[in-house]
Amino acid sequence: MPLFRKDPFGRAWVLISPERGLVPSDFGSVLPLPERSPLSPGNEREAGPEIYAVRPGASAAGGPGWRMRVIAHPAALVDSRNFREEGDHLFRQAVSSGYQEIIVEHPDARMTLDSMPRSHLVDVLRLYRERLALLAGKPAIRHVQISRNVGRAAGALFEHPHAQLLAVPVGSRWVEEEVEAAARYGTEHGGCLFCDVLRRELAGRERVVSHNEAYVAIAPYAAKTPFETWILPRAHDSAYTAVAANTLPLLADILQTVVRALNDALDHPPYNMLVHTLPAENDAHFHWHIELLPRLTQQAGFDWGSGFYVNPTPPEDAARFLREALALQEVRP
Amino acid sequence: MPLFRKDPFGRAWVLISPERGLVPSDFGSVLPLPERSPLSPGNEREAGPEIYAVRPGASAAGGPGWRMRVIAHPAALVDSRNFREEGDHLFRQAVSSGYQEIIVEHPDARMTLDSMPRSHLVDVLRLYRERLALLAGKPAIRHVQISRNVGRAAGALFEHPHAQLLAVPVGSRWVEEEVEAAARYGTEHGGCLFCDVLRRELAGRERVVSHNEAYVAIAPYAAKTPFETWILPRAHDSAYTAVAANTLPLLADILQTVVRALNDALDHPPYNMLVHTLPAENDAHFHWHIELLPRLTQQAGFDWGSGFYVNPTPPEDAARFLREALALQEVRP
Repeated sequence: MPLFRKDPFGRAWVLISPERGLVPSDFGSVLPLPERSPLSPGNEREAGPEIYAVRPGASAAGGPGWRMRVIAHPAALVDSRNFREEGDHLFRQAVSSGYQEIIVEHPDARMTLDSMPRSHLVDVLRLYRERLALLAGKPAIRHVQISRNVGRAAGALFEHPHAQLLAVPVGSRWVEEEVEAAARYGTEHGGCLFCDVLRRELAGRERVVSHNEAYVAIAPYAAKTPFETWILPRAHDSAYTAVAANTLPLLADILQTVVRALNDALDHPPYNMLVHTLPAENDAHFHWHIELLPRLTQQAGFDWGSGFYVNPTPPEDAARFLREALALQEVRP
Repeated sequence: MPLFRKDPFGRAWVLISPERGLVPSDFGSVLPLPERSPLSPGNEREAGPEIYAVRPGASAAGGPGWRMRVIAHPAALVDSRNFREEGDHLFRQAVSSGYQEIIVEHPDARMTLDSMPRSHLVDVLRLYRERLALLAGKPAIRHVQISRNVGRAAGALFEHPHAQLLAVPVGSRWVEEEVEAAARYGTEHGGCLFCDVLRRELAGRERVVSHNEAYVAIAPYAAKTPFETWILPRAHDSAYTAVAANTLPLLADILQTVVRALNDALDHPPYNMLVHTLPAENDAHFHWHIELLPRLTQQAGFDWGSGFYVNPTPPEDAARFLREALALQEVRP
């Protein structure tokens, strides 16, 4: 039976409507990946100005020999030092400023988040933390985000696995909604909304996809898209920059587990991965987390521009399907 | 120079970034339209249960001979009388209920909003008002909307021109954002935010696309997508149901003018048209209006799921381009 579900983390209502049917994987598979890409070693000059690189063999900056590389986004913004809003009570604007970087996660264009060695992914996750801390500390920054777009249908600029970092001096609608929902919850019920949801999900288990000592992956109660999956740290903090070094291998584990489950269950779909975080640590209400959003269906019908979401896959079904995909992986020779 | 602009009607910031370039019309033209469609006369039985029809020749219900026809949406919801939210402070849900109707606007599948006779469009606009009033009066309804999806890339179910009506007992995120912005404005500055923006736009003119005695079409200051165009009534009211019968010909005029300008300038793009309205008339702050959103670009880069919008076409340029398209229409033989 179709249900309306209220997103506890925002103001949206979602219509969970299995009757509408999932048209599976309209956008096809992101495989095969090319052997070489514009971000491959040897193409450094064209790929974009090098901001930072990990070079184990002490190779020269701007050339090959790197393990991970941070470059300026083609549409990089400008120094935020002189950010100033202009205008009045009707129209407000500001010269755009902020920081936009691309992290090339591995020299090999076919080395995806789930296929790269876990130890390499741990280094990538540590690099996210370092870059984010640096950008969050720039003047006037109000919003930071890490995103990974995988596949053209998910808006990817490159097929070569990469992440994007953004730090801007203006607020983001989704963070503001989540912060508002979490603050209201804190006032009305005490404590952290995310921690309480996590506790409830772990008690019920029907929407849990995977979990380990430090992280839990769930299909959220009011999933807006089919197979939307969140990864939340058990330890409360508002910012990804606060992630403890000794939990990074566990984060790498659960990320690889979830992405492999999505790939097996949905044939390597395009997807977006978003790290929702505040720039500042130690906020009592906000709880950083990662959202994985496979792009399986075109938005259509009454959700277009209406502020509604229609999700044909109940999150309980998605979670069960992903758990089954994981069980099959385990029995595979 | 790229600018951040704050949406005065919501919480979003838009990055107006002409440097990123508009990839024109990725989705192509919606033309040619088929001569016949599943909604054409003769297909009534398959098209869906008839709720209402205008039948000038007193033809039998459920058969051909209609001028306009209202049918149940294939995923129609159920009676809202027994709407009841269940759950607790974390998880709230309700059996989905409400009303979803399709208005087949003309028997001829090739008769679009801009190509149909103006007198027919006036009848269509009057029918919108009648159906909306009826649905807004059903029990527990909190949100109503009229939308037209034109072209598959805009989520259209059919190529045959049609509108969709939705009435549900849950709130819509976009209306809530607009209502909140308008209420805050009313408290802080007095009066109606929309009326004040309209006055400012008419004084400046650079974002005005077209206007007549009763309606004004503008490219909004913080346009979220290229060539986004709004039509606002000069007379303040919160609901489309309050539209005065004697202004319907003027509304038909400006709608046809704007859609023709978009078609000429952008080669008949897919688009969405949304009537933003409250179910209730006489709200002091909210001001009903129509939003036209051509679908020209795929969302990409940092807007995906981030709550940001990146618009490569400054609204001042879009408005000028559309005014030029209109001027060319006038000199055409």
